[in-house]
Order: sequence, then C-alpha cells, then structure tokens
Amino acid sequence: MSDRRQPVLGVLGGGQLARMLALAAAPLGVKTLVVDNVADACAGQVAPLVVADWADYDALEAFAAQVDVVTFDFENVPAETARWLAERVAVSPAPQALAVAQDRLAEKTLFRECGLHTPDFMTVDTREQLDQALAAIGVPAILKTRRLGYDGKGQFRLHVLADAEAAWAALGAQAAKHGLILEAFVPFERELSVIAVRGRDGDFRTWPLTRNWHVDGVLSMSLAPAPDIGQLQQRATALARTLAERLGYVGVFALELFVKNGDLLGNEMAPRVHNSGHWTIEGAYASQFENHVRAVLGLPLGDTGARSPSAMFNWIGELPDASALLRTVDAHWHDYGKQARPGRKVGHATVCAPDARQLATRLGAIAAALGREAQVAPVLSALG
Amino acid sequence: MSDRRQPVLGVLGGGQLARMLALAAAPLGVKTLVVDNVADACAGQVAPLVVADWADYDALEAFAAQVDVVTFDFENVPAETARWLAERVAVSPAPQALAVAQDRLAEKTLFRECGLHTPDFMTVDTREQLDQALAAIGVPAILKTRRLGYDGKGQFRLHVLADAEAAWAALGAQAAKHGLILEAFVPFERELSVIAVRGRDGDFRTWPLTRNWHVDGVLSMSLAPAPDIGQLQQRATALARTLAERLGYVGVFALELFVKNGDLLGNEMAPRVHNSGHWTIEGAYASQFENHVRAVLGLPLGDTGARSPSAMFNWIGELPDASALLRTVDAHWHDYGKQARPGRKVGHATVCAPDARQLATRLGAIAAALGREAQVAPVLSALG
Repeated sequence: MSDRRQPVLGVLGGGQLARMLALAAAPLGVKTLVVDNVADACAGQVAPLVVADWADYDALEAFAAQVDVVTFDFENVPAETARWLAERVAVSPAPQALAVAQDRLAEKTLFRECGLHTPDFMTVDTREQLDQALAAIGVPAILKTRRLGYDGKGQFRLHVLADAEAAWAALGAQAAKHGLILEAFVPFERELSVIAVRGRDGDFRTWPLTRNWHVDGVLSMSLAPAPDIGQLQQRATALARTLAERLGYVGVFALELFVKNGDLLGNEMAPRVHNSGHWTIEGAYASQFENHVRAVLGLPLGDTGARSPSAMFNWIGELPDASALLRTVDAHWHDYGKQARPGRKVGHATVCAPDARQLATRLGAIAAALGREAQVAPVLSALG
Repeated sequence: MSDRRQPVLGVLGGGQLARMLALAAAPLGVKTLVVDNVADACAGQVAPLVVADWADYDALEAFAAQVDVVTFDFENVPAETARWLAERVAVSPAPQALAVAQDRLAEKTLFRECGLHTPDFMTVDTREQLDQALAAIGVPAILKTRRLGYDGKGQFRLHVLADAEAAWAALGAQAAKHGLILEAFVPFERELSVIAVRGRDGDFRTWPLTRNWHVDGVLSMSLAPAPDIGQLQQRATALARTLAERLGYVGVFALELFVKNGDLLGNEMAPRVHNSGHWTIEGAYASQFENHVRAVLGLPLGDTGARSPSAMFNWIGELPDASALLRTVDAHWHDYGKQARPGRKVGHATVCAPDARQLATRLGAIAAALGREAQVAPVLSALG
C-alpha cells in the first residue's frame, strides 16, 4: 500500500467559521491549514495556524504550496489577495464571486438581474448625492458602506431627512474609499435566509429556509425550518440557484432575505458558511460546514434535509452559563474558544426537538434558566 | 471582562480515539493536548501533539503542567506512567481502574464480584498449569495474555486438547512477563456491548445496548440500539453501574458482553471510549466522546438516548471508496487520517435511518456499491 496524501483545505481567516470548517473537515480525512493575522485566532486550536498578514506574499506562497484548495472564513479578504492566490492554487469561491459579494452595489445589481427584488437603493459618493438619494428613496433609509460592512457595522439608519447630516458625519469619510449606498428601509415582516451549496459538478442544494431575528444588527436567534413559508422555499431555492449558476459559484453561500407582502426581497449575500446556518451541524443530515468542504474539494454533496426542528441562540459578547443547556436533551453547545469582548460572537447553541411544541418547551426552559426570555420570545411566538 | 482560561484535556495516546475526543472537546470550549510516541499520530491533525515516550518524565512533567485532567486513548498505557501522572494532575479514569481493566484476571474477578457471570477461566503460569486448566475447562478454549491484549492480539484458540503444544509455543514465552489465562470458549448467541459513563458527581448513564460482529477478533459491524434484547438492557445497565461504582470510575467505559441462553456473560471491560460506541457521534443525542470529555472535566452529562437506529461499518486495513456513503442520506464518513496498513483501524462509517427497514435498505445499497455484502449480511439478518 502506497502512502496516501490527505487533501488539505486552506482557510483564509481563523475565526469560528474556520474552526467549524476544520472540525467538519477532519472526519472526511481532510486536513486544514489556517492563515490569520493574529496568533490567538480560535481556529488555531483545532488546526495548524500560519500567522501572516494578507499582504505577506512570502507566507501566502508557502501556504498555497501546502494546500489543495483555498477558501475563506470571511468575505472581506482583500480581493488582490484572493486573485493572487487564485493564480497559484484553486480558490473557492472564486475571487470574482467574492468581489460581487464584497460590493453592495454589485450584489444588489446581480440580485435584480436574477429576478430577486431588492429594496430601492442609490449609490452615494458625495454629500449632495446623499440629499438626492434621500429625495428619491425617502425615509426611513439606511446609509451603508458599499464594502467591508457586516453585522450592522458601517451602517447608519436615517429616520427623518434631517438625519442626513449625522449620517454623513458618521460615514461620509468612507465615501471616497469604500463607496456608499443608500437603501430604503423596508418594514419587513420576516427575515429569512437560505443557505445553499453548489458543487464543482454543478450539483446544487439548499437547506430549508431559516427564520432569523437580529438585535442591533447582529443575529440573535434562528429557527429552522422556518415555519409557515408556503411557496417561499421553492422561490428562494430557485433564486439561489440562478445566482450560484450566474457566478459559477462553488461552495456554500447564504442569501439573506426579507419577506414583505408575501414577496422576497434580497438583502445581502454572504459568500461563505453563515451564522444563520449553524443549526445545520446537528439539525440537518449534512451541515453547511461539511458540505462546503465537500464542495470545494469536489466530493459528492451530502443531504441538506432537516433532521428535526432546530433553534439557534447566538452568544454575543460573552458566554452564558452552559449548565442548563448541557442538561437539555438534544441541545448542543458551541464555545468558539474566544476571549469575551462586547459585540463579539463568542459561541452559539443549537436546540433540536422532535416537533415544534417540544422545541418551544425546551427553549422556554433554557431561556428561563439563563434569564434570556426576551431573546427567545420571538421564536416562541413564531413556533405558535 | 477578564481573560478566560479554557480547560485543557490531556490525552495519552494519539490514535483515532484521541482524535475523536479532541473533535468533541472543541465545541465545549475545551482544548486538547495529546502525547504520543510517534510524530504522525493522527490526533495530531486536530490538536497539538507532544511527541514523547511513556517513560520520558521530563516531557510528561511539562505535559501535566499544561492540562487540567489526563485521560487515555488506549488502556495499555503503563500503570507506572498513569500513577506518576496522578500524583501531579487529575487522571480519569483513575490508575487503579485502568489497572483492573489491564489485567484479565482482575477484570474477570471483579465481574464476578459484581454479579456478572463470565466464561470459566483459570490462570496459567506454566506449561503444566495449562494442561491442568485444559483438564478443568475443556475445549474449545482460548489462551490469552493477562495483559496487553486487544483486538484478538495475544490470543490462541484451542479446539482440541492436543492444541496445547501449539498454544504454549505461541504464548508460553509471555507467561512470565504478562501472565496467561485460559478461558472457556463460549459458543455465544450474540455479542453485545454497553457503553457507560459516570460523572464526577456519580451521575451514571448508559447508551442503548449495541450489537457487535467481529471478524478475526476485530470489530466489523455494530448495530444500535441492539434489537430484541428484552430485559438485557436493564440488566446490563445495572451491572455497568455496579462496576463503575465499585471502581469509583469517572468517564466512559465499555463492557463487552456475550449472550448465552438469555444470560449475559462478561467478556471484557475497556476503560475508555470504545469502537462499538462510535455510532453515538450521530446516532445519540450526546456521543461517547462528548460525554467522556464532560465527565472527566466535571461538566453535566449529556443525554445518552438514541436519536435513531444506527449501524457502523469498521474500516480495517484501508478505506473503501467513500462516494456511495457520502451520497447516502444520514450516512457519516470517518476517516482517521492514518496510513493504510493490514489490520489497522483506519476509519468507520455510521449510517442512521428513521427505522429498521430504512436502515436495512441503506446498508444494503452501500454494501452493494462497495462489494461488502458479506460484512453487512449479519446486520441485515438482525434487522429482520
């Protein structure tokens, strides 16, 4: 028997997504090598970590030589870095897909080309254009940087026209560098996301739609499969497929959607595994992490069906006490091994149950034990 | 917020059990540090690895200083090493429990003290004692080393009395060093195992009984929950609890059992996570690996109930092609990242299904794709 060589997955960025990718890669016999610019990146606890800057091309050269494919833990890897790597090694998703998702204007334009409605938007490069855009779109509206925003960062919500001054004070300095976009604020009825995966061979799958709740722009809770969605699953899957095929996308991505008057509006696309898909680790037959690894390495995709109803708590800033959750049947703790810090995603927990009623009971008991009734309330309401 | 310090699990031995322990420890926020005497130990792909000999006390001293608790990937860690470590750091299971499980005589004596029947046995230190034991026990019988045997190694089966010569030629040289034991060969009807876990606080749980099939002394297939076991679950759980309490055991252990005439006979105890419990990763609410980590760190234990019927294929020597399995819904591939080698455990796969009929269908299809009909046949027969 000749020596086998295990495939090596390279991941740019060493946060919790890289960590969960590495944990999903190992049972497939896939080694992971992570690059991050900080030495205590939490993925480094479960995979070898190269500490290097995105512009350290010597380090990246050595990294590229050791891996079979490069993927991303976050979408704000500089496009130059991604393109430079793509000349040396397979990169999935491809730099051009990354570039679209990095630019809110390109992203929303693509959405519309694919038949996905979006809130009204206009680009804003100057203070004057902000006034023009406000005149056209009205309030409420949100001024956002075109690039480098995530989790509500780089955003300013305008309630009245007079907020233009404060919005410009907050973000105007970024207009030249990153570009700005003014979007209508849609008083949506529900936030959904669809997590999708496309293989090298074009095989395409979506997990069941997830319903999400955000607090201060950061995901707080998810519920999957999203209840009472009627035909929206089919529509979301079709849109995600069109988008993926248009981009020649390989790997997992998330499409964040609003529901308004029964229609889907595209909010944004994340070209990577996504926080609202963490429930798939225990709640689906194959997780988003496993299928991303499979996709980028050209392996057959796993089944994306839900095993049972699941809800996810996001732990922001610091972890609550784990005991109540550890004692709950089919509840799963995920500590990312990070230091506590205000606003930081430090962990999550997924609770599964055979049906909606039992899921509600489990969530209610955990919330009571943790004093998290407010966090859980909208989920209990959605579960009926 | 002050800096947190994550708990660190130390594991002696860096094989697949350490690897799966590390993968289960990470979501709990537990770091793993592994010691093995070979640099390519497969657990080193998912956790930092210290390469050191069991007698390298400088290295062990440094290891002990970095971990909160030490546990084992295999039961043949020298008792001196375990005791030496136990003077410096918490060791679970405790060296005395390890010592019992390392010695077939002590183990079987304990089984009987706990009310668990065993096949007849006698110790054998000399060629003459072998004849005496054979006269008392008869044939078929198995001559085994008292220590350091596993997976059918260190065993010789005697079919007729005249086999004594060959048996002594094979194992006699080990009589002085490891001791020998002659056991009656029991023509058992079924092989079962019970995987059990006991927490620091005495909380005790068992997973559903697993039915096992061995080929050449090595586990080939497992099926859980074992079908048609009637009252045996309660009896096995009670026996395992008695055993665990007698030993003051903390962590996961496996008790291998034979069924004969409706009675349970104790075969052996493995003081660690066990091959026949690998199905718990996907088939149970909390896996043996997760609960072992929880137990030795004093965390609450997770629910040991089965999520669905599951069957496990053991991959011995080399891995088969993964495609058919990767394409099967709720089937899970586990490649240990090891080089192929005859007789070596290089991976396993667990197939789950909503009911026995669908499990049989999935197993049959995988077996056909892999040409593994013979391996699966007894499981299909047990599934009816």
